Amino acid sequence: MEQCAIGVYGLGVMGKSLAMNFIRHGFPTSLYSKSEPERNSFSCPEQENWTLCQDEATFVASLKRPRIVFLMITAGKPVDSVLDALLPLLEEGDTVIDGGNSYFEDTKRRCARTERSGVAFLGLGVSGGEKGALEGPCMMAGGSIAGWKASSTLLQAIAAKAPDGAPCCAYVGPEGAGHYVKMVHNGIEYAIMQQLADLYGLMRDGMGMSAGTIADVFRSWQKGVLNSYLVDITIRVLEKQDADGGPLIDRILDVARQKGTGCWSVLEAARRGVYVPCIDEALFTRYHSEQRAMRTRGAAVLPHTPVACPVPTVLQLQNALYLAIICSYSQGIALIGKASEEFHWDIDLALAVSLWRNGCIIRSDLLGVITASLRHGERQLLFTEGLGDLRVMEAGLRAVSIYAVATGTAAPALSAAMLYYDQCCSARMNVNLVQGLRDCFGAHTYERLDRAGSFHTAWED
Amino acid sequence: MEQCAIGVYGLGVMGKSLAMNFIRHGFPTSLYSKSEPERNSFSCPEQENWTLCQDEATFVASLKRPRIVFLMITAGKPVDSVLDALLPLLEEGDTVIDGGNSYFEDTKRRCARTERSGVAFLGLGVSGGEKGALEGPCMMAGGSIAGWKASSTLLQAIAAKAPDGAPCCAYVGPEGAGHYVKMVHNGIEYAIMQQLADLYGLMRDGMGMSAGTIADVFRSWQKGVLNSYLVDITIRVLEKQDADGGPLIDRILDVARQKGTGCWSVLEAARRGVYVPCIDEALFTRYHSEQRAMRTRGAAVLPHTPVACPVPTVLQLQNALYLAIICSYSQGIALIGKASEEFHWDIDLALAVSLWRNGCIIRSDLLGVITASLRHGERQLLFTEGLGDLRVMEAGLRAVSIYAVATGTAAPALSAAMLYYDQCCSARMNVNLVQGLRDCFGAHTYERLDRAGSFHTAWED
Repeated sequence: MEQCAIGVYGLGVMGKSLAMNFIRHGFPTSLYSKSEPERNSFSCPEQENWTLCQDEATFVASLKRPRIVFLMITAGKPVDSVLDALLPLLEEGDTVIDGGNSYFEDTKRRCARTERSGVAFLGLGVSGGEKGALEGPCMMAGGSIAGWKASSTLLQAIAAKAPDGAPCCAYVGPEGAGHYVKMVHNGIEYAIMQQLADLYGLMRDGMGMSAGTIADVFRSWQKGVLNSYLVDITIRVLEKQDADGGPLIDRILDVARQKGTGCWSVLEAARRGVYVPCIDEALFTRYHSEQRAMRTRGAAVLPHTPVACPVPTVLQLQNALYLAIICSYSQGIALIGKASEEFHWDIDLALAVSLWRNGCIIRSDLLGVITASLRHGERQLLFTEGLGDLRVMEAGLRAVSIYAVATGTAAPALSAAMLYYDQCCSARMNVNLVQGLRDCFGAHTYERLDRAGSFHTAWED
Repeated sequence: MEQCAIGVYGLGVMGKSLAMNFIRHGFPTSLYSKSEPERNSFSCPEQENWTLCQDEATFVASLKRPRIVFLMITAGKPVDSVLDALLPLLEEGDTVIDGGNSYFEDTKRRCARTERSGVAFLGLGVSGGEKGALEGPCMMAGGSIAGWKASSTLLQAIAAKAPDGAPCCAYVGPEGAGHYVKMVHNGIEYAIMQQLADLYGLMRDGMGMSAGTIADVFRSWQKGVLNSYLVDITIRVLEKQDADGGPLIDRILDVARQKGTGCWSVLEAARRGVYVPCIDEALFTRYHSEQRAMRTRGAAVLPHTPVACPVPTVLQLQNALYLAIICSYSQGIALIGKASEEFHWDIDLALAVSLWRNGCIIRSDLLGVITASLRHGERQLLFTEGLGDLRVMEAGLRAVSIYAVATGTAAPALSAAMLYYDQCCSARMNVNLVQGLRDCFGAHTYERLDRAGSFHTAWED
């Protein structure tokens, strides 16, 4: 067959699905995996525009120049090893795309490394799981602009399309910008999933509702402003029956695991000084859930003493979730904005967020509204137009947050959203006392409201 | 004069004070600083047992063998530079003590480095500020056990003494263990200061109390279970008058700064997977306070809509603070415990915490109780004996937390304590939904309540 437009390196679940996606879009595709079982298991009988290579040299030779190699392999050291093997075979003008969940600092380093051989490196955040990869993922590109120009036609062709027809794939900035935006996408995903779990928990433990009844509540929101993939699958998970017909959700252990990108988001927020309490609580609540023996003991030794409190209405629950999700997005967007400033990436936040409108896990109707809001140049999402009356939503979130505290039913990511909202709308915070204390014990100085400068007081006089 | 028992390298505010402390305790002390102004400004006329050196070789030569050099210089690169200069002058069996706020990983690296020259390295966390350094600091030692044996008599002599007479200075573990315990001390300090600020803010903004009246409330707690240095200086700060006689606290800008150890604690908690929401909120609230323009705009665009709620009593405020402080300690102790496990440091938690009973910023009567509680071997502070009836405290913290949310008066570190408490006493959390969602979109698998193993469900069937 003719020389291939793209080579997919790595044929695990994601690599195989992306390769099929390229093939079905008519791109002659070359395939390779270091793993013989992966190579042998690939098959796409209904199409002819692909070739499976048995070694790296044949794989590289099968590609049209300038070559495009799409790595879909485990993030971390394996990417460096594959670069060791491929770079000597590639030429100036070729492009390597890393579609894994790589750490953005690694991507920056790899950009610099391949550039020395004249090879372009594109760090590509890919979201959507197996199904997304096959049918249209969301892809956030960063790194070499030349690499983007060389590959954008192919990438945008296989990407998901937003409701306005735009491909959910674009170049967001240099170095690790693409993987950074993907990392924050996952951080927001952590936050929203925890907020859905918080509402589920309040209905289950506070209001004594069954899984089926809770699913009905979520379903009543499915056609409205909350319409989203995560609400869809929440309903699916809540409705799933176990072998005996009982709700499967009631049998699932309340210990949540994690794979790293949520943690990276929190580490980055701490380094950049960006307040992301919803992402933060979502991550740490997963960690804390692992302390099951301790929690069980706590419940026995120190059972909660609830306080009487009105039960929230379904509308209040809905409004609470809406504002909580906006707070999660707001935090993620602020984090990307700060990183973009500090790393000089010049990321167009509206463009970055617009990519999430389809193909990825956090896709939702709301993201169309948020994209439109951000296009007016406002970077603080809470203050954008078009999100509806947030003060109505606030009343819902406040009622639900109070209910969570009153009943002792922890709703960490909803409570964090309330706190975030209140802190964003506080002209005067209480930390002037913190500054006073710091100056008192450590002479750290303070600033004043009424005049500029740094001041130190002899507090003991 | 005779050869010196110790050499203090670095004569800034802390170095000078520590040197005076050694001198007054009768130890012949040699002094050196790279900075000529620092050298020239040192003076201790009432004592004769000290010598000021003009270069490093004379400084080292002035010390009795095996030598002990106490570095009190800026943390970071300067410590490595000074080691570059000193190590060639030192001999096997000598000890270098680093009393700065060094990052624990740097201390680990330096222990390994000096060991290659046969020189012992002790990473020493020092807390108490200038006054503590002069009159008796709290010192947490880690690193070379030989270095500790060589210097413990001197260090324990100048340290603060706990109410039972024990010196607030001990060896807590190898490598960076001492600086780690100090880092967590500072994280707890962040949390408690924010909790004090939260109560101040609730009284100021929610209850409309003046600084003087708020000081009176704190003073009413000064003789009880909350007796502590931080409560003492809170009263001092709240009572301080500005030049015109008005309360100075009302003129201090509500923007809190930070110098790194709080951030290190949060980064460490994220890496180790330890839930530390009070430390976390305290750090991020400082960061967020810097967004003053945004907050002011938020208050104008989205003014809070409060909900009616009973005003907490002074007793409820007191109980809330008590439990919140316990939660802050509990989180810090858990972090030290996890690090000790993962780094194989074998830290005696009761011993580490006992050092904080005097000399340091978080010193308090409560720490005596906590030390006694931990000595029974229980590592989860909330479940130890002797802390009083936590469920009474819980009622106070719950009332105060509800009030904070209802009035829209953010009390981040108090709310975080309530959330932590509730999560520690939740036998059944809501994250089974998170696991269901993760398995649904990413085949991440889940565990079950009713049998062991990892399970994956075909959710779409």
